[in-house]
Amino acid sequence: MAEPKENLQMEKIVSLCKRRGFVFQSSEIYGGINGFWDYGPLGAELKRNVKELWWNAMTRQRDDVAGLEATIIMSPKIWEASGHVATFADLMRECPLTKKRVRADQVEPLSGVAYHFSGAKSGQIVNELNDQLMNEGASAAAKAVLVETMARLKDSEEALVAAATMLEASNDKVVAQWARNVFKQLADNKKSNHSFSYLLLQGKNPESARKAAREFYSQAGIEMPLLLDESTEKMENSTDYHPDSFVHLAEPRPFNLMFKTYVGPVESEDGIAYLRPETAQAIFAQFKNVLETSRQKVPFGIAQVGKAFRNEVTPRNFIFRSREFEQMELEFFIKPDEVIEAIHGSVASVSDSQLSTLNPQPNWGWRAWHQYWVEERVRFYEGIGLDRSTLGFHQQTPAELAHYARACTDILFKFPFSKKDENGNVAGDELEGIAARSDFDLSQHQRFSGKPMGVFDDELRAAWAKLPKEKQDDLWKRYYDNRKNYLTKCAKPDETAEQISRQATDDANGLAKGQYIPHVIEPSAGVDRLILALIANAYSEETKTDEKGKSETTVVMKFHPRVAPVKAGIFPLLKNKPELVKKAQEVRELLRPWMNVFYDEAGSIGRRYARQDEIGTPFCVTIDFDTLGEKPELLDTVTLRYRDDGRQERLKISELRDWLLARIR
Amino acid sequence: MAEPKENLQMEKIVSLCKRRGFVFQSSEIYGGINGFWDYGPLGAELKRNVKELWWNAMTRQRDDVAGLEATIIMSPKIWEASGHVATFADLMRECPLTKKRVRADQVEPLSGVAYHFSGAKSGQIVNELNDQLMNEGASAAAKAVLVETMARLKDSEEALVAAATMLEASNDKVVAQWARNVFKQLADNKKSNHSFSYLLLQGKNPESARKAAREFYSQAGIEMPLLLDESTEKMENSTDYHPDSFVHLAEPRPFNLMFKTYVGPVESEDGIAYLRPETAQAIFAQFKNVLETSRQKVPFGIAQVGKAFRNEVTPRNFIFRSREFEQMELEFFIKPDEVIEAIHGSVASVSDSQLSTLNPQPNWGWRAWHQYWVEERVRFYEGIGLDRSTLGFHQQTPAELAHYARACTDILFKFPFSKKDENGNVAGDELEGIAARSDFDLSQHQRFSGKPMGVFDDELRAAWAKLPKEKQDDLWKRYYDNRKNYLTKCAKPDETAEQISRQATDDANGLAKGQYIPHVIEPSAGVDRLILALIANAYSEETKTDEKGKSETTVVMKFHPRVAPVKAGIFPLLKNKPELVKKAQEVRELLRPWMNVFYDEAGSIGRRYARQDEIGTPFCVTIDFDTLGEKPELLDTVTLRYRDDGRQERLKISELRDWLLARIR
Repeated sequence: MAEPKENLQMEKIVSLCKRRGFVFQSSEIYGGINGFWDYGPLGAELKRNVKELWWNAMTRQRDDVAGLEATIIMSPKIWEASGHVATFADLMRECPLTKKRVRADQVEPLSGVAYHFSGAKSGQIVNELNDQLMNEGASAAAKAVLVETMARLKDSEEALVAAATMLEASNDKVVAQWARNVFKQLADNKKSNHSFSYLLLQGKNPESARKAAREFYSQAGIEMPLLLDESTEKMENSTDYHPDSFVHLAEPRPFNLMFKTYVGPVESEDGIAYLRPETAQAIFAQFKNVLETSRQKVPFGIAQVGKAFRNEVTPRNFIFRSREFEQMELEFFIKPDEVIEAIHGSVASVSDSQLSTLNPQPNWGWRAWHQYWVEERVRFYEGIGLDRSTLGFHQQTPAELAHYARACTDILFKFPFSKKDENGNVAGDELEGIAARSDFDLSQHQRFSGKPMGVFDDELRAAWAKLPKEKQDDLWKRYYDNRKNYLTKCAKPDETAEQISRQATDDANGLAKGQYIPHVIEPSAGVDRLILALIANAYSEETKTDEKGKSETTVVMKFHPRVAPVKAGIFPLLKNKPELVKKAQEVRELLRPWMNVFYDEAGSIGRRYARQDEIGTPFCVTIDFDTLGEKPELLDTVTLRYRDDGRQERLKISELRDWLLARIR
Repeated sequence: MAEPKENLQMEKIVSLCKRRGFVFQSSEIYGGINGFWDYGPLGAELKRNVKELWWNAMTRQRDDVAGLEATIIMSPKIWEASGHVATFADLMRECPLTKKRVRADQVEPLSGVAYHFSGAKSGQIVNELNDQLMNEGASAAAKAVLVETMARLKDSEEALVAAATMLEASNDKVVAQWARNVFKQLADNKKSNHSFSYLLLQGKNPESARKAAREFYSQAGIEMPLLLDESTEKMENSTDYHPDSFVHLAEPRPFNLMFKTYVGPVESEDGIAYLRPETAQAIFAQFKNVLETSRQKVPFGIAQVGKAFRNEVTPRNFIFRSREFEQMELEFFIKPDEVIEAIHGSVASVSDSQLSTLNPQPNWGWRAWHQYWVEERVRFYEGIGLDRSTLGFHQQTPAELAHYARACTDILFKFPFSKKDENGNVAGDELEGIAARSDFDLSQHQRFSGKPMGVFDDELRAAWAKLPKEKQDDLWKRYYDNRKNYLTKCAKPDETAEQISRQATDDANGLAKGQYIPHVIEPSAGVDRLILALIANAYSEETKTDEKGKSETTVVMKFHPRVAPVKAGIFPLLKNKPELVKKAQEVRELLRPWMNVFYDEAGSIGRRYARQDEIGTPFCVTIDFDTLGEKPELLDTVTLRYRDDGRQERLKISELRDWLLARIR
């Protein structure tokens, strides 16, 4: 019974988002466009805050990360190198009835009895003929037969023909005429020769097979379809039927998830381009440019925030899975473990508990960096109000990992739509994946562009020269094996084993010269799903009962002050007292250069609080008569009210800005 | 001779942008993609600063503007309503041979002799017949004729026919048979009746005309084309020939500048969508949603920053005109002048000089609002370092204005590539346009979506009721005329004059009920061209001569502190003194949460200053021995150095943050 409650929660969230201007359906006045969502005034602020916090944490607050802002449309060769052109496609099979698609490799096996139909013929006007007959007064016996025929009329053409044949011989002229009309009409009616199959699960009524078939043929333009050549066949674990509709699926067809367009005046092959399906690849393509201009050296990262596009077959769960979305991605480039070992003698083994207090160390290998970034990212989420208890973790299994990936940790959030497992636990759905991607990405771009993507490391060259021969050989061999493994798995059709060995040898020989291709750790987060997590996490309802016993439920959005779209509401106690209004506007002007504030003078203070609660404003500032000095000791102080507990305190206006800044940054 | 210097300046700028990581060519390792540019680490910061300043100035600092962040892909119906599907196109002419296109209004005039051909016939198999003949042993004389014929064979059908006619009469039976075979073959061969013309410039070999013609017909599927009906014609300043291929251009055809893609799994008409060519339309489409959720009322604005895409035929001038770019647009909705007059008795006449000190007034009509926004936007540019002297203005003439627009003022910047007029003055190129667009946009979306886009104004209703009949009639008539004018110009094909009059009457009758469709003032700025303006404006060179008489030229980027990518360089005097390094890192940690800083300990202080000068860092902070208390009175002070004049002063660390914040915000 969990489902309805979860849906209710999502419905409330979607409704609030529309009502208060967080999220609107894109192009709503034109009926919308599936999988696209706009951010209204408050949503736009919330999203800006989240992106700004990420950018600050990832670039400005660190010495070892540089930013990048690349285009959405890039050379299509980038997507050949990354593998997106060839493989960023799902083989899909479509249910011809519901048009729903399933991934061809994910069709659930089903057993039962298949009902096959070779086609259908329209039975249109047969009903009318029938009505006509009933009205024209056939005999009681004939009517009884007709009633029975009627019940079977929709079954199949055979059933109808059998009935009509019988009735054609009737003494009742009206009945006999009716039967002849049936034959005549049938001969003229439209026919479809498309076959249709339906898998009837055990215990189900065969009529559901026929119902589905009739719907299918109706859609195909056969009105009142009479089914032809029904036959049955026993099926065991067939993967040819749609798991929801039980209809036989069409043949698999590849469906690339990249949006395609044409650049330049001619729509030709030469001009094909794609909307990027991820922001990561631009970082790899510009790796050398950034390295050469930013005074960074490995280990260092490149960060990017921006739109990405995926032509999802089934966009769903509001802004969680949409077709146009925004990513915040960091590619953090590190030395391969063999290089670390050559320079530092060994790769540091760093346990989780140490990581949370440790700063990055020169002898970290990919495992330590991977764990470090998982920790960093969790701390980021905690810092914007998502407690560890709201998160989940998933270590991708070897079967789930891409062949080049060494590990991937997904950080999950328990969304209202997240499924429960058999034990009733909610794991959550993905907010961010932190992947250790080896040197796959830079290697691919090196091979596809012909431009060197490796780096030169003086420290490595010096260290290598001092290594004992045995150690050199060991490291050489491990590096060689890794390179050969990659080159073999990603070989182009014309590459021979010999060429691959030679390339791997060259690569491993590079170590002695201080050369290697960096590995990468990739923390990749989705902005929109994070916004949804923040909204779901903030959503709470409060029911208050007034003196008269009347209870009212209001929504309080408990956003962390760092992400809250409005940081402070500013109210003059009364709007018809010019001194109060003037002072309140002064406070507004004082704060506005530093934060987003909302000035409100309409309605009672209680109503104004409630309005701010509903949009998640963490603090409200009221200018009252004490501010003006009614109690002299309170001159130039204001009432500050906390959203979450309604607590109030008195603050000096002169301290207000810094007090707020300390809490919203 | 100004041109080369201007180009030199642009070259220097492009070179600096690459060298210091402001702007890279998109997908550079794959040879780039024309019209797309990436922002490197410094460019990304510069751009973020500009967008953030705009957003703050336009939304957070004002009560009367709400923000929006809509999708790039929207319902295609939006672009039907806006007119982009029908008219956002350049008229292009295509070279039928090379398929290269030129803008129809930009074809360079050429003079020469035109070679016309009426068509071509395939000469296929004639060659084979010939080989056959040579092998079968014709007489020596016949062979000689054949060799000569062969040489002319490709010229034209006439040449071949003439030769065959002569040879048909030959005594040599083999030769005569060959000639008959030629006729037979020619009669069967494929023919094209497409005419083709080529402009032969003076001094060129006529054979190049025939060569081009043969290539053209070959492409059209005529193998071994024999040209038909060659004729020539003298041409003076013809604009019908492609300037590179000299081939006669096809008729002009509109070429829509919107990038097209398909949403959903099937590439069908139903799925066509466009990448938005401007951010403005989403604002109109979401006007009602924002109005209803943001507690705004007219006059108010909706602001949006985001990517837009135009498939420019000739992207040019670096990031000034690219295919993927970013816009900052405000749509500011105002009451129609008739409504202002109904409520306030008259529309304020506001002169320029008044505007600069005036706050918006309730009785402003579109002229005052338009002027106000021009002033506001100029002040914005001044505030980020573009002096009024670097800007230019252009009032669009009635001929330039869109039919619905009442005025448009372009704010120009004098770019290095901007052209001089006949008097040697540089007007500049467009940074931003501020347009008074009447009620065209909301009206269009109302008509295309069928959803009401008007607002209800209680003040208008109350005021209207109190107006003398005469005044009502006057205002009614003017509003009616405006609506009728719009409805007539934008009528759909099936709309009659009567329907239009009825609609205009309904609209004008709405005034009495307090209803109207808001007008709009649109300040629309391009982010990328502003970035280029800021870079061009900041670029300066300084030549210093050292004691030895050696002079060196360095670049100083004089960015306004508000937009500078790095706000402060932080240097320990010496990197091998741990106390200095520790203190410098403390200063870095102190400032980093508030601004982007760059910590640098490598090289001499002079070199470090020069590095920061080249990226435009306005302030450098050096931690020296006095900071550590070598002179006790200077304990915990730092040297602060100004970029623009090299001036230095001593500041307390405790005051540093606020000192810098006051200058960078």
